[in-house]
This record gives sequence, structure tokens and C-alpha cells, in this order.
Amino acid sequence: MTDSKLIKHPSHSRTIMNEMILPNDTNTLQNLMGGRLLHWMDIAAAIAAQKHSGKTVVTASVDSVSFGKSIKLGDVVTLQAEVSRAFSTSMEVYIKVWAENIPTGESFLSNEAYYTFVALDRNGAPVKVPDFSPETEEEIRRYDGALRRRQLRLILAGKMKPDDATELKALFM
Amino acid sequence: MTDSKLIKHPSHSRTIMNEMILPNDTNTLQNLMGGRLLHWMDIAAAIAAQKHSGKTVVTASVDSVSFGKSIKLGDVVTLQAEVSRAFSTSMEVYIKVWAENIPTGESFLSNEAYYTFVALDRNGAPVKVPDFSPETEEEIRRYDGALRRRQLRLILAGKMKPDDATELKALFM
Amino acid sequence: MTDSKLIKHPSHSRTIMNEMILPNDTNTLQNLMGGRLLHWMDIAAAIAAQKHSGKTVVTASVDSVSFGKSIKLGDVVTLQAEVSRAFSTSMEVYIKVWAENIPTGESFLSNEAYYTFVALDRNGAPVKVPDFSPETEEEIRRYDGALRRRQLRLILAGKMKPDDATELKALFM
Amino acid sequence: MTDSKLIKHPSHSRTIMNEMILPNDTNTLQNLMGGRLLHWMDIAAAIAAQKHSGKTVVTASVDSVSFGKSIKLGDVVTLQAEVSRAFSTSMEVYIKVWAENIPTGESFLSNEAYYTFVALDRNGAPVKVPDFSPETEEEIRRYDGALRRRQLRLILAGKMKPDDATELKALFM
Amino acid sequence: MTDSKLIKHPSHSRTIMNEMILPNDTNTLQNLMGGRLLHWMDIAAAIAAQKHSGKTVVTASVDSVSFGKSIKLGDVVTLQAEVSRAFSTSMEVYIKVWAENIPTGESFLSNEAYYTFVALDRNGAPVKVPDFSPETEEEIRRYDGALRRRQLRLILAGKMKPDDATELKALFM
Amino acid sequence: MTDSKLIKHPSHSRTIMNEMILPNDTNTLQNLMGGRLLHWMDIAAAIAAQKHSGKTVVTASVDSVSFGKSIKLGDVVTLQAEVSRAFSTSMEVYIKVWAENIPTGESFLSNEAYYTFVALDRNGAPVKVPDFSPETEEEIRRYDGALRRRQLRLILAGKMKPDDATELKALFM
Repeated sequence: MTDSKLIKHPSHSRTIMNEMILPNDTNTLQNLMGGRLLHWMDIAAAIAAQKHSGKTVVTASVDSVSFGKSIKLGDVVTLQAEVSRAFSTSMEVYIKVWAENIPTGESFLSNEAYYTFVALDRNGAPVKVPDFSPETEEEIRRYDGALRRRQLRLILAGKMKPDDATELKALFM
Repeated sequence: MTDSKLIKHPSHSRTIMNEMILPNDTNTLQNLMGGRLLHWMDIAAAIAAQKHSGKTVVTASVDSVSFGKSIKLGDVVTLQAEVSRAFSTSMEVYIKVWAENIPTGESFLSNEAYYTFVALDRNGAPVKVPDFSPETEEEIRRYDGALRRRQLRLILAGKMKPDDATELKALFM
Repeated sequence: MTDSKLIKHPSHSRTIMNEMILPNDTNTLQNLMGGRLLHWMDIAAAIAAQKHSGKTVVTASVDSVSFGKSIKLGDVVTLQAEVSRAFSTSMEVYIKVWAENIPTGESFLSNEAYYTFVALDRNGAPVKVPDFSPETEEEIRRYDGALRRRQLRLILAGKMKPDDATELKALFM
Repeated sequence: MTDSKLIKHPSHSRTIMNEMILPNDTNTLQNLMGGRLLHWMDIAAAIAAQKHSGKTVVTASVDSVSFGKSIKLGDVVTLQAEVSRAFSTSMEVYIKVWAENIPTGESFLSNEAYYTFVALDRNGAPVKVPDFSPETEEEIRRYDGALRRRQLRLILAGKMKPDDATELKALFM
Repeated sequence: MTDSKLIKHPSHSRTIMNEMILPNDTNTLQNLMGGRLLHWMDIAAAIAAQKHSGKTVVTASVDSVSFGKSIKLGDVVTLQAEVSRAFSTSMEVYIKVWAENIPTGESFLSNEAYYTFVALDRNGAPVKVPDFSPETEEEIRRYDGALRRRQLRLILAGKMKPDDATELKALFM
Repeated sequence: MTDSKLIKHPSHSRTIMNEMILPNDTNTLQNLMGGRLLHWMDIAAAIAAQKHSGKTVVTASVDSVSFGKSIKLGDVVTLQAEVSRAFSTSMEVYIKVWAENIPTGESFLSNEAYYTFVALDRNGAPVKVPDFSPETEEEIRRYDGALRRRQLRLILAGKMKPDDATELKALFM
């Protein structure tokens, strides 16, 4: 007998957030501060990881994020987060952020990022999460890249030697 | 004639922050949420970059950050940020975070991270920052590693081909 | 010549927000306070009204809202807002709120509400908004009910005599 | 023997709040956002309902609220809340809001609203509240209108048929 | 000709605030943190000083404040502030704070304090404030004590020699 | 046998905080509000008192604080707090605050203050704190002045008659 709940698709965890940029979110040039956006991305991604796992989750890591065009006071940011791959007790979540100045109609893709989360039981111990299965071509590409990103995370956290990162080494050869 | 202000050392930008973990900083297991910490790290690092450049700054990127042992409600976190290398109009800032449970006396190194910032003039255009010179052995090591981290950032942001990342390739050979 | 931008559909303004219930959002029984939810509904609805009008908007009124089953600390609320009818310089926005306790999987429709907004130009004066056209059956029903709700608002604000509320009177006859 | 505590007057629950409008309370035109005011009204009204009942309370509903003249950054708003009628386990609270620009001396009545609350015991179950007795003419008028408002709330929440709303029907006949 | 506006009484500036103690206001023992209360006292007192002066004001000093019985999560604090004496461009404001646990009915006087404010014109320069005249016995006593408190402030700020504090010396002789 | 932990020096509790002035911290002239600074000083001082005592602490009093030159939006304030004397279950903490406008390079000493805290055990009862020993000349001067400040606090709180304040009387003779 198969428990259909044990395999989940990206659409199951997809989470959308909209935030309006208020004065306290900005610096003296009235640009959104990067740290505030990292905080919102963490909340959106955590909700997605909770939806996939059905558990309380904690942030295990955030991958490199770069910030381009500045987002201004009064703009609206839209965050979309969804699980991109599940491991034993952890999940990688892909987040995309758009910014929009509604009066001018100008809108642009601001950031993409990967956060990873660990699912915890009531005592705070890591717990197994449901399997994950991508569906669209883009989801499959992201799923496949997850191993490479994972090796990079382990190397950067000093938990793996570059020499053992077979997936990643391929990039440079 | 030399303007001594144009070369600055890490001690010039060193910035310390202490924050007490309050209820709204935590999830239902009373652990500090990762996004809140990323936000504090951004503020501490931005102050350090402002001290080095004497300008308003904006976050250009954050490198991969991993979170280990959980930080609990009521703990005190200490953040120390300092510029680790200056480029033309940008600066890399190194941040270290410790957590301490004061009643139990338990204390540990929680995170290390690199944020980069761009200095801006009053019109929001990038502006040249003072030169930077490391002093201690550790500061020199960090200064040297900055090129490698920069190539990794450019590759991850899709602005450099892995093949051109000569500094980084050495790691995998 | 027709400016296709002048007629907009509900899907154009549809706005989704997710919020996690944090300690400061709750009372001593750890239930979400009603006022916090009214605040979030106002932000989601204002973004929807901005999307329809392409202008800065101010809240003109909120219709009666009732709160049923309590929402608890750690739950996730999902708000969906969309314009339901446009008048000359004002818009009625329909908002639906779901609450979900992710670990237990329990989820329920928490609230429905109507907020109205006025679009303003840069000097704060009311400005004409694009026409609005409903598409689905449910959208059409909501569009038709808008006149009745408007009369009720005018009566409750003391700006119309009950006797003149022809749409509304039908309800009681 | 009579327990005098079981009958309370409006003065017993009267609650005053003053708030200064700070930047994060405003939109890009520096007007107070409606949702923030609804949140403050809920807190003032909840304190009044707690004073009447001596219990923890939760918001059951808010009646239609309209917003007129805009309130600006730096203004001071004064909220006055008091119970207007008590039912078995619930209370209707009347709230009045004034705004004042102190440097110009300009001041105006901004809003009036009715919120209802349910009193809860320690386990979160509804609990009987003290009887309520109005004193002034205005308090008596408000007390009498409470039945009509209650029927309107029940109709709007879909819990009463318009035809059964005898108090309300009189308005339209 | 006399401008009656130039003499104001304490009742003119009297300002009441009620705040409910939320989780983020408390430490790990769920007691209200002193700094949060000092912040609320400053806001209430600033509104009172604005009402007296009709100007924007800045805090010039706070006199010694002591905290006794702890205030708990869920309690309601009531602050009452009023001008106690006006000097040329500054005002002394007297603040009284009560705390109440509504479910238990327990209530107590928590703090008394004096804050002083300077009135500023639009360019931020100090500006003359209306005269002040106390009415009740208690208000007169407070008015008379203001000179003594002022000398103590000047000594503690290093702006007066103890030997010149004639009002204050009387206390110790 | 001596427990070396029972004597602590000022360096043991020294705590540094940096805060950037954000819009919500300021009044309409964009000056930092005094109450916000008093709140930050309380947090910095509480962390220092926790470090000395190894216990949860509550604020017992704040001594007179005066505010001079205004601190502006975008400035950075640096707070340094350290225990200045320990009594049986309480500690006096000395706090120094600097403000800096980084783009102009202007920096000044903004405030000095003394807060006192009581150490509490898990049940909220006062508990003995480690002994304290000053080291530098300045620390010794501050340690010696603590008795005088303590008498002033007791008089101002109405817990000591001026006549019994032998330390303080010397000032006026």
C-alpha cells in the first residue's frame, strides 16, 4: 500500500508573500535594506518547508544571494517560495523575488535564492520529511542542480573537502 | 603628499552589536529564526562598511551562511563585523556571531559570513572607497581569500564563467 | 481607439499574502488578536487596489467583519485580495482569509471582508480609476452585490437615508 | 443579597489611548494607514471589554468603519472606548477617535466604531459577563441601538435571515 | 490686552495612554522591561509638552525613576502625563504610571517621574512656550518643587556647582 | 579555598551595542526620540548586569539622564555599558553613549547614565551577586561615587531621609 502523502510536488509547498516597503525597511537613500529582504525570504521559505514537511522547521543555511537594482520606499515586493528538493530530514527551498513600483508600472526580478531547512519534531530532534518529485522541466533542472549546490554548501561550511565534491568539480573541468 | 585617510585598517571599521533574543525573534520551539539573524548581520556589516567608506552603503551580496546549534529565547548574541577587503567602489565585510546563554554560562561561535556593500554618493551613484590594508596574519589570510570568494560570487550570480575563475579553479585541482 | 488598459479584470489585482503568527500578534491565550488581522487585511487589500488603479490609495471604509474560530500562535494565515467593483475614483476590494496549523494539517476559512479605497494623485486629490469587468460567475455575483453594500455603507456613515437605499430595501421586503 | 459588582456602568470600562503617528504608520503620501488605526481601535476596545468583564477577551466582530479626512505623520490620535451593551458572554464596545495636529491646533473627530468581544475563561471557553447599565441620555440611546446593530451583524455574517431582523426592518419601513 | 492663550493650566496638557503588555515587552521571567516603560513615558510626556507648547518638542532630560513591583505579561499600564511647570523654552512634565492585572483585579501605582522637554520651531531652534499656572493644591506643590528638581538636574549634568543650588541645599540643612 | 568567580572586574561585564537610527526612532524633525535611547540603554545595561551576575535581571532604577545635541536619522549610536559597583543582590551599571554621523565624520559623546538592576533566581526572588572590584583609576572613582548616587536614589524614591544621607550631605557643605 502506498501512502500518497509521502510524495509531494513543488506546487504543494508553493507560498506567495507580498510586502509593501515601509519607512523602517529603508536606509537614508530610501532603498530597501538587504537584511530586511533576507528576513522576509526566510519567512516565505520557512512556510514552504513547513507545508512540505508538515513540521516545525529551522533554517540550516542560505546560499549566496546577490542584490541588483535597488527597491524603493512604497514599492511592493512579491516573494514566491517552493521546495526544490528534499533530503532525509532537510529540504532545499527556491525563492524568487520581484519588485514593483505600482504608480510607474515598473517591475523587475530582484533576487533568486536557495535556503535549506531541517524539519524538527516536538522535542526539537530532526525528523524524516516526505519524498519530493519535480514535475515541470524547470523544476527538474532545479532538482538536479540541488546536489551540486549541496556540495558547495558543505565545502563552504568546512564539512567537505573540495576534492570529494565530484558533482561540483565537473563545473571546473 | 599622501592622504593617510585613504588607507584604512580592519580596526577602523570594527563594529560590535549585542542583541537579546526576544519572543518575536523566535519560532514555536523558541529558537531564533535564521532570517532575523541575517537581518542583524546586515545591519552590523553595513555600519562597518560605512565606517570604512564614510558613505551611505547598500548591500550587494551575502555569501552562503550556515546555521548550526540553535540559539534560544533570552540568549544574547554578539556580532562583530569588519571590512576584510576593499575593491574600487565595493567592500567585503567579515562578520562573526557568538551566542551566549548567560544564566548557564554556555557560549559558542554561531556563524561566520561575508557580506559585500557598494558605497554611494548623495545621488545614489557608486563612489570610490579608501584603500584597505590588513595587519594581523588572520586579516591577511582573509584579505587573500577575498579574490576567490569574489569569483565564486560572480559565478553564482551568473556574471562569470567557471572557466575564467582562475583563483577558484585552483581549489579543485 | 480603445485603451485596453482602461478595463481590468479581478485577476489583474489579485494579491496573496502569507503571515506566520508570532508572539506579539497574540493575546495571553495565544490567539491572534483581531486588530492585527484587520491590519494585514488592509495591507493586502491596499496592494490589490494599487494594482487596479496604478495609484497610491487610501482606505475609505471597511465593512463589518466577524471572527469565528481562533487562530493560534505558529499558525500561518493566507490572505487573498482582489478588486470586486470599481466606481469613479474608488474601488471595493474583496478579501478572504484562511488559517492553517501546518503540523496538525488543520485548515479553515477564517474571514471574508470588503474594504473600499480611494485612488489619489501625487497631490492627494482623488483620481479616476480604470473600469472593472468581472469574469467568473462568482465575480459577477460579487460585482452585483457591490451596489447594495455601498448603500449600506452610506447609511451606516450617515450619508444616505435608509429610505433612499432602494437596492438594500429589497432585502427586507 | 446583591453583588453590586454584577452591574457596571460605561464609566467603569472607559479607556483612553493616545498614539503619535510615526513614519511606519503612514503610506507614501504620509497619511496614517487605515489598518493601523483599526489595530489601535481593537486594542483600546479590548482593554475596555476586559475592564467590564474582568476576563481575557477575543474580538468577535467589528462593524463597518468609514475613514474621512486623512490623518498625517506627526499628528496625535486619541481613542476613547467604552462598553455600550453587554449580552450573555459578549460585549459591544463603542470607540471614538479624534486626530489633532498640535502645531496647527487643528483637531477633528476622525472615526466612530463598534467592536464586539467575547469573554473567555482560562481554558478559552466563553464565560458570563456582568450586567451593564447605561446612565446618560447618549449612553441609553447607544444601548437601545445595540439590538439593531446586532441583527445587522448576524445578517452580514449569514447567521440570521433579513426577514427575522425585526429591529432592523423597522428602519426600512 | 491679554492673550488668554499664553497662560495654560495642567488640565490643558493632561494626556492618558493605555498599553497592553505584549510578549516582546517582557524578559524571560515575563516581566515588563524597564526600558520599554521609559519609552512609553517619554511618548506620553512628549504629547503633554506638545499640547502645552503647541510646538514640536525634544526630550531634554529624565529625572531619576525607580521601579518597584514587577508588571507582568498581559497587564495593562495606564500613563497620565501633564505639564508641572514651564520655564522660558522648556517644560517639566509629571508622569504617573499605574499597572493593572484585569483578571485578578489587582492594580497598583507603579512609577512617578519627571521628564523635561524643549519646544522647537520649524528650524529646530528653541522657542518660547506659554506661561503655566497650577490650580489644585497638589499642582501648586509640584510647581514649587520644580525649582529644586531643576537645580538637582543642573548639578547632575555638571552645569551647576552644588554650592550655588540654594533651593536644594535647604533640603540638607 | 577561594572561588575566583566571586570577584569580577568591569571588563567582565563590558557590553557594546551599535544601533542605526531608523525613521520610526525619530520625531517630525528627524531627531532621535529620547525614550528610544533610554530603551536601548536599558537593554545594553541589562546585558552587562546579566554578564556580571550570571542571572536574569530586572531594572530597579535609572538615574537622571540629560540629552544635549540632537542625534539625527541615519546616525549610528554606540552604547558601552559596564557594572560600576555591586551591592548584595543589586548592581549599578554605568552607560556611555556616542553618536556618529558617518558621512560627515562628526562624532560626539551624547549621554552618560547609571541604571541599577536586581538579580533574580528562577522563581523571581532576589539572589546574591558576585563581588565586584574596580581596576583603573576611573573605575575606582566611579566605584567610590556609587554610595553617594545610591543615597540620592533612596532619597528621591522616598526611602531615605535627606538627613541620613551622610555621603550626599558632604556635597553641599
